[in-house]
Amino acid sequence: MENPQRLYVRSRPGRLEAQWVVGFVDGEGCFFVGINPHPEMTCRFQVLPEFTVVQHQRDIQLLYALKAFFGCGVVRRNREDRMAYRVRSVDHLSQRVVPFFDEHPLKSKKRIDFFKFRRILQLMMQGEHLKAEGIERIREIASSMNTGRGR
Amino acid sequence: MENPQRLYVRSRPGRLEAQWVVGFVDGEGCFFVGINPHPEMTCRFQVLPEFTVVQHQRDIQLLYALKAFFGCGVVRRNREDRMAYRVRSVDHLSQRVVPFFDEHPLKSKKRIDFFKFRRILQLMMQGEHLKAEGIERIREIASSMNTGRGR
Repeated sequence: MENPQRLYVRSRPGRLEAQWVVGFVDGEGCFFVGINPHPEMTCRFQVLPEFTVVQHQRDIQLLYALKAFFGCGVVRRNREDRMAYRVRSVDHLSQRVVPFFDEHPLKSKKRIDFFKFRRILQLMMQGEHLKAEGIERIREIASSMNTGRGR
Repeated sequence: MENPQRLYVRSRPGRLEAQWVVGFVDGEGCFFVGINPHPEMTCRFQVLPEFTVVQHQRDIQLLYALKAFFGCGVVRRNREDRMAYRVRSVDHLSQRVVPFFDEHPLKSKKRIDFFKFRRILQLMMQGEHLKAEGIERIREIASSMNTGRGR
């Protein structure tokens, strides 16, 4: 029988292929927009878009490969034995993550969350998250995301 | 805002690309070998290898796309609102699923389960699952699979 450790060392992920990233994110990715109270901001709320991929720590090298692939984001502990690759910068999300998934569409229903996520980023680029009305609009879109995934 | 339903209709998965399948299975796939008591068989045990991908029912079309991609297997309800694509035939596993992942290696630690799965299929092709000693060897390999994934 093969020695799994040896095989592991031999087959590091290296540079990822675009379609692998799409398939993996279709399975494991999450597009999320948090809206938190923030007394110091004009409209009292802060909009926090986030692209995340969570994995068991034994596959942390895949998260670093994603970080290298997108050229942005961080790898941090999520909770317990799970790690997360996370992009929170609006610039990085708009200039790197969104264009990638525009060019290489997700195949799962997760793409509907992606469309909403992209729309919220557009509204933020227009400064809508700094107005009470814009916040309401963003909140409405965000509240319809990540529903019905059954987990 | 885009109409998600329209976008969904527009972007059916169609024919999958190999690397998408690898990425998706790295995230969502499972290689499992069940060993069940079976009084009618010579060695009293039946070895049941199985390749499975489970998804929320809203992405059932991806499971049918996988079925078309591998040209084998079935799509069935798993439990509650989740569906499963499943290949159980030893011939289909040996001739279609295993060669695909030999040619397009998994990037996650799931490939260690795949190597064990492939080894068990080889032993079955040699008839080892029909001998008490072979069953013990298979049981030993199978018991070390799907551990430490943290879910």
